[in-house]
Amino acid sequence: MVPLDLLFNPSSIAIVGASDHTGKIGNTVVFNVLQSKKRRIYPVNPNEKEVLGLKCYPSISSLPEVVDLAVLAIPARLSIGVIEECANVGVPYVVCIAAGFSEIGDEGRALEERLRKTIEGTKTRIIGPNTMGIIAPRSDLDTFFTPLDRSPRPGNGIISVISQSGSVLCGIYEGAEDTGVGISTAIGLGNKVDLNENDFLEYFKDDDLTRCIVLYLESFTDGKRFLDLCRQITPSKPIVAIKVGRTEKGAKAATSHTGALARGSDALTTGVFKQFGVERAYDERDLLDLSKALAYIDHIDGDRIAVLSNTGGFAVIATDYIESKDNGAGLRMANISEEAQKEIMSRTQYFASAQNPVDLTGSVTDETYGEALEILEKEENIDAILILLQLQAPQLTEGLADIVARIVNEGGKPAIVCAIGGSFPRPILRRFEQKGIPSFGSLRPAIWALKALYDRGIYLKRIGAVCE
Amino acid sequence: MVPLDLLFNPSSIAIVGASDHTGKIGNTVVFNVLQSKKRRIYPVNPNEKEVLGLKCYPSISSLPEVVDLAVLAIPARLSIGVIEECANVGVPYVVCIAAGFSEIGDEGRALEERLRKTIEGTKTRIIGPNTMGIIAPRSDLDTFFTPLDRSPRPGNGIISVISQSGSVLCGIYEGAEDTGVGISTAIGLGNKVDLNENDFLEYFKDDDLTRCIVLYLESFTDGKRFLDLCRQITPSKPIVAIKVGRTEKGAKAATSHTGALARGSDALTTGVFKQFGVERAYDERDLLDLSKALAYIDHIDGDRIAVLSNTGGFAVIATDYIESKDNGAGLRMANISEEAQKEIMSRTQYFASAQNPVDLTGSVTDETYGEALEILEKEENIDAILILLQLQAPQLTEGLADIVARIVNEGGKPAIVCAIGGSFPRPILRRFEQKGIPSFGSLRPAIWALKALYDRGIYLKRIGAVCE
Repeated sequence: MVPLDLLFNPSSIAIVGASDHTGKIGNTVVFNVLQSKKRRIYPVNPNEKEVLGLKCYPSISSLPEVVDLAVLAIPARLSIGVIEECANVGVPYVVCIAAGFSEIGDEGRALEERLRKTIEGTKTRIIGPNTMGIIAPRSDLDTFFTPLDRSPRPGNGIISVISQSGSVLCGIYEGAEDTGVGISTAIGLGNKVDLNENDFLEYFKDDDLTRCIVLYLESFTDGKRFLDLCRQITPSKPIVAIKVGRTEKGAKAATSHTGALARGSDALTTGVFKQFGVERAYDERDLLDLSKALAYIDHIDGDRIAVLSNTGGFAVIATDYIESKDNGAGLRMANISEEAQKEIMSRTQYFASAQNPVDLTGSVTDETYGEALEILEKEENIDAILILLQLQAPQLTEGLADIVARIVNEGGKPAIVCAIGGSFPRPILRRFEQKGIPSFGSLRPAIWALKALYDRGIYLKRIGAVCE
Repeated sequence: MVPLDLLFNPSSIAIVGASDHTGKIGNTVVFNVLQSKKRRIYPVNPNEKEVLGLKCYPSISSLPEVVDLAVLAIPARLSIGVIEECANVGVPYVVCIAAGFSEIGDEGRALEERLRKTIEGTKTRIIGPNTMGIIAPRSDLDTFFTPLDRSPRPGNGIISVISQSGSVLCGIYEGAEDTGVGISTAIGLGNKVDLNENDFLEYFKDDDLTRCIVLYLESFTDGKRFLDLCRQITPSKPIVAIKVGRTEKGAKAATSHTGALARGSDALTTGVFKQFGVERAYDERDLLDLSKALAYIDHIDGDRIAVLSNTGGFAVIATDYIESKDNGAGLRMANISEEAQKEIMSRTQYFASAQNPVDLTGSVTDETYGEALEILEKEENIDAILILLQLQAPQLTEGLADIVARIVNEGGKPAIVCAIGGSFPRPILRRFEQKGIPSFGSLRPAIWALKALYDRGIYLKRIGAVCE
């Protein structure tokens, strides 16, 4: 029995506080939930007769069935009574959106304690309070209260996100949508009065639809269980995590935000993350950039990086970033064999360069790029390839994404793509991403992704999960 | 007399190697130059009669006038003869696009030496070879060979860029265009056979249209003169610079790229940059992110930062980034006075927080944001304000940009904006940017910009340019 299955794919949903007035949270949630046609949806509000064309019910008890999930879009002070009703009729999952609990001080803490007591000994589980809820592109579920036009949702993917902050969750999934990265599941934990990060880690541990787990945490609910779960998960699935409260002021801000009581020193967090193979991130971009690389590639077996580029200056910056230990990844530029260099030069302009970094120059074609990549894929002394693109070069087309994806899949050597510029490369980078090649719009995150892949390789060797 | 005026705003331009065939470099350059209607344009090519509707001339000598600028879109081996002709008739400036000089080794180095000799004792000055050329939105000049549809140009602004790499130049100006940042002038130095970074620094030193100078360098042509210029410039104008060759492999890659011979240790570069107030950057994003903050704000007088946000989680991450010395800026969260906190809370929901970071919560309106900002602008113990926005919040509109810009201009306390998300906030961030508020789409560059502003304040105090 896997209990959370029902939460991630409920057959029936009640929205309490449903409203027929556009702009109200209780309206947006009904609208978003309705995007999937496969569920039975029940608006609940004693003051409305109909919401978005659906019959509206006065209460949870008056519904024609016991729903799998109730989403509460009502203020804090009203939530407790409704949750009690949910527990009485046996609703298994409740998403409690309301803020105004432990994050506002003593009064709120007392209210949150009442919430906890309300479900004690019952089968009802709460997500939140003070939460965004859940989106699960895997099952077409969307309980978020952010409007779709302002906050577009990502497609389905292999990354699952657990976040104690709704806005960080937004930052991740909107960033994913914008860059063509898919998300499997995204959960807002909020104040964690009941279900917490460990419950979801436990689920994603054995979940075939999740290849990488992303965490944003303001506090650990149960540090020991958390580490035990990480130890079980990281040998087979990467975890990327932000733990805030790195500074005293940061920890205090977290308390005002979700009532989190940050415990323990930050150095300890760094140490245990390292020991248990959790990749530490520092902001929402990190989370997305590192997790997509880890989700698709998992790890690289060594530190020898080849740079294949058509842009001289960026290749030089990349070289410094790869080799430098000071503001860089501390990896190594691979040696490309004489034969491979000759093969590459025979296909390019005489002013190109086939030493690492390879510079195919601005006059390169899709075909030449592909041929050079094929040559590097066969090189023994290369662990990963950074494909650096100035897609503005007149002879390159978006078809390059298909060529690169085919060659990388056949060759088997990990490759990531980085393309430089503003709006023009964006849709082409999306195409690379959707072909399963981690793709970046600037150099730094691409290099940090390589470093994370290398670090994970080292971790897997250390614990004996892969051969030396 | 300021010699480079004519280069940045020529009355007449010849394009040698002009072509009537779309896709050829010699066609794109003519097309781009023609975007400005105020100049006399002469295509030159003995094999064409007409290019883009203009009469085509067989040679530089056959033109009806001595042009101010000749752009050479011809191969390396043909360039020398044409430059000799330019020198003979007295063309003051030549942009030499061709690659295939010192960056390809001994043969190319000899060719480059011949180029140098060709102009010795003449009044002709060369930009390049191996260069993109110049764009100067200030005077509507565009000699680049990148097509406008693939490589959109920025509007006019107060940042001038000097780059030894064409692709880095592209990265900067396309990034600027994409985010609504203006550029005054952007120059590709290429192999620097004649005009070099120091010539352009000298010009921008006294240039009223440049408030911040951006540099990408693979080598110093004359280190002593460079430092002397920096010493003269940085008291009144910020300089942001990448110097590659931080690692041995990076220096070697630079040699293959522009023939640069990197000299001296990187620690020395770091030291002198610090001494002379040059802000060091590490990639193209850094250059743009730091320079726009420095161009608009110049510096901040202290390290006390207030965070005004409507998004709890990001405010917590920002707090850690601001305070932490380890992967952070090492600045301080300002103390907000009791009175100010009360004033803010009287305008917000009870579950908001007015301690620093201020969290106005997702239900904030433009007006409340403005009122809270006005309160913070009046606080004595705040040196700068980080405005953190989740623009997806239902009651915020793009009009917030106008409100914020007005209040910051009136209040005088420096402020930068950071908005979280994917495609939705992008046009609103552009609007902030165009109102002169440095704006960022993610947290890290915003924090690093604050750090650069603070560091510049410290530098200005150290040299006595501003009061302690």
